[in-house]
Amino acid sequence: MVKLVECVPNFSEGRNREVIDAIINEAKQYKIKIVDMTPDADHNRTDVTMIGEPDEVKNAALAMAIKAVELIDMEKHKGEHPRMGAMDVVPFIPLLNTTMEECIQLAHSFAKEFSEKTGVPCFLYEEAATRPERKNLADVRRGEYEGLKEEIGKNPDKVPDYGPNRIHPTAGATAVGAREFLIAFNVNLATNDINIAKTIAKAVRHSGGGYRFVKAMGFEIKEKNMVQVSMNMTNYKRTPLFRVFETIKREAERYGTQVVSSEIVGMVPLDAIVDVAAWYLQIDDFHTEQIIEKKLLEEFS
Amino acid sequence: MVKLVECVPNFSEGRNREVIDAIINEAKQYKIKIVDMTPDADHNRTDVTMIGEPDEVKNAALAMAIKAVELIDMEKHKGEHPRMGAMDVVPFIPLLNTTMEECIQLAHSFAKEFSEKTGVPCFLYEEAATRPERKNLADVRRGEYEGLKEEIGKNPDKVPDYGPNRIHPTAGATAVGAREFLIAFNVNLATNDINIAKTIAKAVRHSGGGYRFVKAMGFEIKEKNMVQVSMNMTNYKRTPLFRVFETIKREAERYGTQVVSSEIVGMVPLDAIVDVAAWYLQIDDFHTEQIIEKKLLEEFS
Repeated sequence: MVKLVECVPNFSEGRNREVIDAIINEAKQYKIKIVDMTPDADHNRTDVTMIGEPDEVKNAALAMAIKAVELIDMEKHKGEHPRMGAMDVVPFIPLLNTTMEECIQLAHSFAKEFSEKTGVPCFLYEEAATRPERKNLADVRRGEYEGLKEEIGKNPDKVPDYGPNRIHPTAGATAVGAREFLIAFNVNLATNDINIAKTIAKAVRHSGGGYRFVKAMGFEIKEKNMVQVSMNMTNYKRTPLFRVFETIKREAERYGTQVVSSEIVGMVPLDAIVDVAAWYLQIDDFHTEQIIEKKLLEEFS
Repeated sequence: MVKLVECVPNFSEGRNREVIDAIINEAKQYKIKIVDMTPDADHNRTDVTMIGEPDEVKNAALAMAIKAVELIDMEKHKGEHPRMGAMDVVPFIPLLNTTMEECIQLAHSFAKEFSEKTGVPCFLYEEAATRPERKNLADVRRGEYEGLKEEIGKNPDKVPDYGPNRIHPTAGATAVGAREFLIAFNVNLATNDINIAKTIAKAVRHSGGGYRFVKAMGFEIKEKNMVQVSMNMTNYKRTPLFRVFETIKREAERYGTQVVSSEIVGMVPLDAIVDVAAWYLQIDDFHTEQIIEKKLLEEFS
């Protein structure tokens, strides 16, 4: 029975193709599969999504991180996205036959090895956080590279979980975490009134009093003459897609409009889709093992 | 890229465990996976569901069929289920990276080899049928073993597709076919009025003027004090689950009742579930390749 985790290292280079390739090539010596890779020039940042067995993924991320420390200078880095290090964020996500606990252990093990080898301080976040105020990545990264440089070594809140209590002179610091799989889920409305999208986004997101594991924003989709409620579903097991979708449908009605369509951007775990189908068909005891492809995957792996 | 088909041989022994095991053991010398096996004593019949690459599955079915001819005597066979041969029915079903055309070819190839080796006449049915009146298995099997024995060799409608134009003296005849995957889908209603289940079953099934690829019956589920619309979805691609489910919901309302729950019995292809989720969430361009487990399956196989 194969155990699989996902890891999505984000590093602070989104323009220089040679540097990007050199970092990603480090991962390729390990038995991992890179399923997505998106350099962003505006953000000057690249996200890499890879899948594999836990140790292979950890070692691949480690090799990438060490190369990023070697090639990226945070003193010269500019980009729109918040960041504090050359290898900025490394989250581990349970995928198949692995638990959150195992991903937390991977985060610890990665942070320890990485800081020992490079002297880059590491902060554990989300499920791997050692203090409640470090759960939220945005809080860990507040002040970014420049702010942390001033504060670390002086502010007791900024003592890293692993590595020296000082900034790395060129590579900054790294946030290492464990989290649930994140689903990018957008719902398009039959109106061009951006206020409706913003109002509904606020109604369903956690920060607005809505569902616990939803982050949401309202956007205009000008080419379609529509507006969109754009969401990150941060824990589809506890805040399922169908419930949020039904709430948006009802709220749209209230404002005299309707849902036109929706989209899932990128990858999605099988059980998130099965949960949707089973809820709408009112199936009480569906098992993913009833799906032929799932059974075959267990055979092959 | 692995190619997979399913095959569900039905043979006419559901009581004698030694005979059942001897027939099934023949399949085990091939690289196939038996995913389901249900001997039925009342029907005196066993259905075996196996999955594998096309030639492995065909050879496994052939070995089972030859053993069934050796061990089963139709002159002595009694059982509630309609049947005409020792190896009664052999359908091939496209599963992964295979087409219906390939399954039709498998059916021809199986029927040719089997009849050459055993002298059992074979009739091709459903998608493999060579005449429109042989599409429906119930029509092919009408009269059963005893009726066919009288008619074959005399009635030009009963000339087999492969093999001699006479019955095999102990093994009868075999129906060999190619068909779509069949989903067993039941919907439970919040009433114990069997007439409502029967009326709705009639409304949704093909023979009653309903959906083309639905067979349906109304049943009582006494232990739950409910009634059930029990269906075989014979082509979920062209008559999808969600459409039939929504129709049943609406019809139930008409009779003052509601759907309580539903169930999928046994295996189901991934895309049948994806179609349900995508329809309810109104996703226009979802691809099964977005599902992590599907992508992994392609990697491994």
